[in-house]
Formats: sequence, structure tokens, C-alpha cells
Amino acid sequence: MSNQTTLAQSNIYREIHEQPAALRRLLENSRGAAAELAQAIHTRAVTHVVIAARGTSDNAGRYAQYVLGAHNQLIVSLATPSLFTIYAQPPQFHNALVLGISQSGKSPDIVAVMDEAQRQGALTAVMTNAPDSPLAEQADHVIDIAAGPELAVAATKSYTNEVAAIALLSALLSEDEKRLEELDTMPQAVARTLAASEPIGQAAQRYCYMNRSVIIGRGFNYATAFELALKMKELTYTLVEPYSSADFLHGPVAMVEAGFPVITVAPSGVMQEKMQEFVAAAARRNAEILVISDDDALLSQARTPLPIAPGVAEWLSPITAIVPGQLFAMHLAHARGYNVDAPRGLRKVTETR
Amino acid sequence: MSNQTTLAQSNIYREIHEQPAALRRLLENSRGAAAELAQAIHTRAVTHVVIAARGTSDNAGRYAQYVLGAHNQLIVSLATPSLFTIYAQPPQFHNALVLGISQSGKSPDIVAVMDEAQRQGALTAVMTNAPDSPLAEQADHVIDIAAGPELAVAATKSYTNEVAAIALLSALLSEDEKRLEELDTMPQAVARTLAASEPIGQAAQRYCYMNRSVIIGRGFNYATAFELALKMKELTYTLVEPYSSADFLHGPVAMVEAGFPVITVAPSGVMQEKMQEFVAAAARRNAEILVISDDDALLSQARTPLPIAPGVAEWLSPITAIVPGQLFAMHLAHARGYNVDAPRGLRKVTETR
Repeated sequence: MSNQTTLAQSNIYREIHEQPAALRRLLENSRGAAAELAQAIHTRAVTHVVIAARGTSDNAGRYAQYVLGAHNQLIVSLATPSLFTIYAQPPQFHNALVLGISQSGKSPDIVAVMDEAQRQGALTAVMTNAPDSPLAEQADHVIDIAAGPELAVAATKSYTNEVAAIALLSALLSEDEKRLEELDTMPQAVARTLAASEPIGQAAQRYCYMNRSVIIGRGFNYATAFELALKMKELTYTLVEPYSSADFLHGPVAMVEAGFPVITVAPSGVMQEKMQEFVAAAARRNAEILVISDDDALLSQARTPLPIAPGVAEWLSPITAIVPGQLFAMHLAHARGYNVDAPRGLRKVTETR
Repeated sequence: MSNQTTLAQSNIYREIHEQPAALRRLLENSRGAAAELAQAIHTRAVTHVVIAARGTSDNAGRYAQYVLGAHNQLIVSLATPSLFTIYAQPPQFHNALVLGISQSGKSPDIVAVMDEAQRQGALTAVMTNAPDSPLAEQADHVIDIAAGPELAVAATKSYTNEVAAIALLSALLSEDEKRLEELDTMPQAVARTLAASEPIGQAAQRYCYMNRSVIIGRGFNYATAFELALKMKELTYTLVEPYSSADFLHGPVAMVEAGFPVITVAPSGVMQEKMQEFVAAAARRNAEILVISDDDALLSQARTPLPIAPGVAEWLSPITAIVPGQLFAMHLAHARGYNVDAPRGLRKVTETR
């Protein structure tokens, strides 16, 4: 009992539960800045996007790769910062938008990419929780993700706000009022997902001695698979690798034997059929199946269902789908007796070059 | 003894050892086609590159991301095929080169990306071991990787030849005679690496009960980390995740405890210092360290050294660095009694959409 009290007082517990309020703040405060960036993308005739980010922010970048591709017809490349910090001659951006994403705005290698983008005269923008950071100073456009102070080392609300900021930019770029309205429903959808998450604390117990797993996602939720895998590694020290179901079938599926834990991110939408096929294939191998979904039929096939709120448009489902994953990782770390706010060997700002 | 005879008669053993001859064939046969593609890239004023590939070929694409970035100043994006097969409106390629890489030339989702590229009028090229395949028929330029028939399910010589074909294209693009000469020495460098690999069969025994590991590489050898991780998963059913040392320090390092196996890809060159720092950090956590390198000081810090031939230029070191990894994965699979030519649940051509 006191154990549960302790968990509820942790920074990460509080920050996970602050997500509805943080999303609301972003949607109220940052629409103007996002609209200006959308305008500049049109004016400058941007042909492709290069994203510079690390860790959790790079996973938000992966969402951008799908949403800007599917809804805005933009090719998005995830930058390889070492090409800017270590090798002699950096790549040429030409008509690219160069977008840095960083909670702290302090990562030296992301700063280096933005420096070079500015030197080349490319259109630059930054999404950050620190609008007065060194990174923000370098950019033509700054979108404050407005998540509020994030104290836990493992990022949660800054991730959902980065994803929402990208969704906002995408909807503004295509001037799609329906999508903007859908986005406005997300604080409520995350609140409903949190309200339904009570059983996760008990369900996590089963996995105390799990030491490896894979997470499968595709399309918009490929990003969710990456972000949940990172949370699991940071918080629970379990080797959890993210995969698209297509790539997984090109080799790694050979690993799956009876009892091998497979977490599937499968919200309703065009990817649902693929994910359904994947769950069936995993079931034939007697894998241990965990499913994040709003679909009762899919959830019923899981040993451990991780439900999300129904009625969310697929393109926005990454904002709800990560939530039971964050809670699962937090509860599993807590069940193992780990420090959920300060995992061993990590600091909040990682300075890599 | 009969066990070793069996292994030497396997397709994968033969194909790993055919790599020097296969590389020589590529360099003799495909220079003309690569030079024509290089010419077209100049003529068409290509501003960026989009690569469509799956599995092993996608890992070769990751090498292209670094070598075309560092030596040819091109931004390279790894395509997300589902944007072309599942979502309604595909991204616009504008002035991109769209490059498909596929051993078999049969992957339906790669074919779909190339179809769309042709429809949009983008410059298209294919690197394949099947120059009369459906994929090759769609492209403006076809580079035959000339690896010869590959029968083992896990790709080996087709990977090194894809990497060499990309290296050839890069050197021709920058008209760099010194680099072309360096490339011509690679068949011999791979032969020397194979000749020094005798101890790997014995060394692999130690890892029979390993069930997870990470592989760290950066820069040009980020691709090597991905490809070796895939071989380990396909052949030995071990969950092995690839990481850049920079990304690894943004969270996943929390997993590393005493005895946790860490494979480091660390050939001589500008990345060596970073890898040296990384090995020291892993040693402080009492990790089990395996090192692929030509540097005696680095190799001496490993519990299991996996040496490669010295004297290879860093940009070409991925061609030698994968070789002890291929052998390690093959020997470990054999030591565990697995079928090295036909891993469970896999076929040579994977048809994903």
C-alpha cells in the first residue's frame, strides 16, 4: 500500500497523468507559431524535410515521417548527426525544411545540424520544451511544445506534446479543418485512456522476470513501437526491440518461440488488418501476446490487453497508444524495485556529439 | 569432426567464403552501369536520394546514407514502403534519385515504390542480384550486384556486394581515383579477414546460452551493426539490437549490467576514438565485451576479439567488418544445433506489402 503511495508521488507518475493538461496547453498556445511555419513551408517551396533529433524526440520524428508523408506528400529523412559533427563535408539541404526536435534544446549534435542548416540558408524550425534554449535561438521558427517542466529522466509528456505539435503542423499545412477538430479531442481521449488504465499495475506483475521482448507497430504507430521500446529499456532494463511487422517477417520472426513476449500496437484503422494477421501468426507460434488497441476482438486475443480510448482517428492514435505503454513500463520498473524517476546511469540531458 | 564437415558443406559457409570472388566479379562487371548512373545523377541535378529496401538490403541502404552523405553531400532517406502501398496519396519525389535495393528483385512493396517513382518521372535505379527481375524492368538504371546464386536464406555475399556497389557509385560520383583504387583492394582484404577467422568457431561456444545482446556501431559501420544484428536474429534466434553509441547513451545504456554482452564494431578511423570511449564505459559496467576491429589495443580490451584485416580505408571497412560477424553468427547457430541454411520460419524471398 505504501508502495503504491510512493509510486503515485513519483515525477513520472505525475507527468504521465499531466498529459491531458499538457496537450491542451500546446493546442491553445502554439497554433500561431505552427501556422507561421506552415506558411513558410509553402512560401519557400519546401520539397523535403530533414529531422534532427535523438532518443524520444527522434521517435516523434518517426511519427513526422509518416504523417507528413501520408498527409502532406513530403519525403522525410531522419538526419544522421555524425555527418555534421564528425565527417568533414556536411550534406547539402537544398530546398529542405530542417526541423530540430529536442525537449531540452541542449543536445550539442542537434545544435550542430541546425548550425549547418542556417549556414546553408535552409528553412529551419525547432520544436522544444525550452524556447529560450541555444537550439531555439538558431531557428527561423520555434514551436514551444509547452509540456511544462519534465523532471523524470524518462520522457513522457514531452513525447506526446512533440507528436501533437507535428500533427498540428501537418493539419495546418493541408488546411484541414476536420483534422484540426480531431486533434482538439485528444486531451479528452488521453484522459479516457488514463481512466481505463487501472488494471495495468496488476498485469505488469506477470512480466517481472521477462528479459527480452519485441514491439510491433506499423504506419503512424511505428513511432509508438520505437518509443515504447525505449521506455522499456530505460525504465525496466529489458531488451525490447521495435519492429514493423513487414521488417520483422524478413528475418527476426525466426526468434519467436513458445512464450516469447510480443507487444503489438494495433489501433483501429488501415493498419488493423495487417496487425490482425501478425497477431494470428504470433499466436500460431504460441507467443505471449500483449495488445495495445481500442478493438475488442484484437484485445480479446491477448494474454494481456492494454486498452486505449475508442473513437480516435488513426493518424492521431499514437497520442493515446503510447499511454498504456508508458504505464506498463513504469509499473514493471516499480514491481522490480527500480527507481522510476532516475534509471541507473542516465541523466535528463544527454550530451552526445 | 563430422559436425565440422557438415558445416563446411553448408550453403552459408560456402557463400561467406565466396565473398572475395563475388566482390571481384562486381568490380569487373558493374563499373560501366554504375558510371552511367553517376552521370545521370549529375545531369538530372539530383538533390537527394530515397532508398527503398527491406531486411539485409535496407542495411546496405544505411551504408548509402553515410557514404553518399559524407562523400557526395547527398541527403539520403530510407523510404517507408507502407506510404506507397497502404496510404492513399504517396509522397512526392521532386528531384530525388529513387534507388531500390533487392537481392531477388521480387519484393512487392519495393516494386510499388519504384512504380510510383516512375509514374512521377523521378530518376530511378535498382541494385539487384536478379537483373531480369520485375524490379529491374521498372528502373532507368540497373546495377547487377553479380553476387552469383545465393542459396542460404540468410544473405551474406549479396550484402557485401550491395555495399560495394554503393561504394563504387559514390567513388564514381566524386570521380575519386584514389577511392576507386582503395575499392579494388577489398577482395584481397576480405580474403585476409577470412584467413584470420579460424578461432571464431571455438570462441562462439562461450555464447551458447546468451539470449540477448546489443551491437554498437557508428558512421559507416552503423550499417554493420544493423546487418550483424539481423544475422544474429535470423541464424541464432538471439534478440540482438543494433545501436549507435550516441543513441545508446540516450537511454538504453541503463540495461547494461555485469555480464551483459556488448558487441562493438570499431575499425580504425575517425570513429575509433568514440568507440574506444564506449568500450571503456562498457568495461566500467563490467559488460562482456566483443570487439570487431583491426586495432590491437581495442582488440586487447575484448573478452572475445574478432579481428579484421588492417590497412582498409574507413569508408570501406563495412565490407570487412561484417565478415567475422557473419562467421560468429553461423558458428553460434551451428553450436546450438540450428539449421544454418534454413532458419525456422523463413523463406529466401519474403513478400510483404
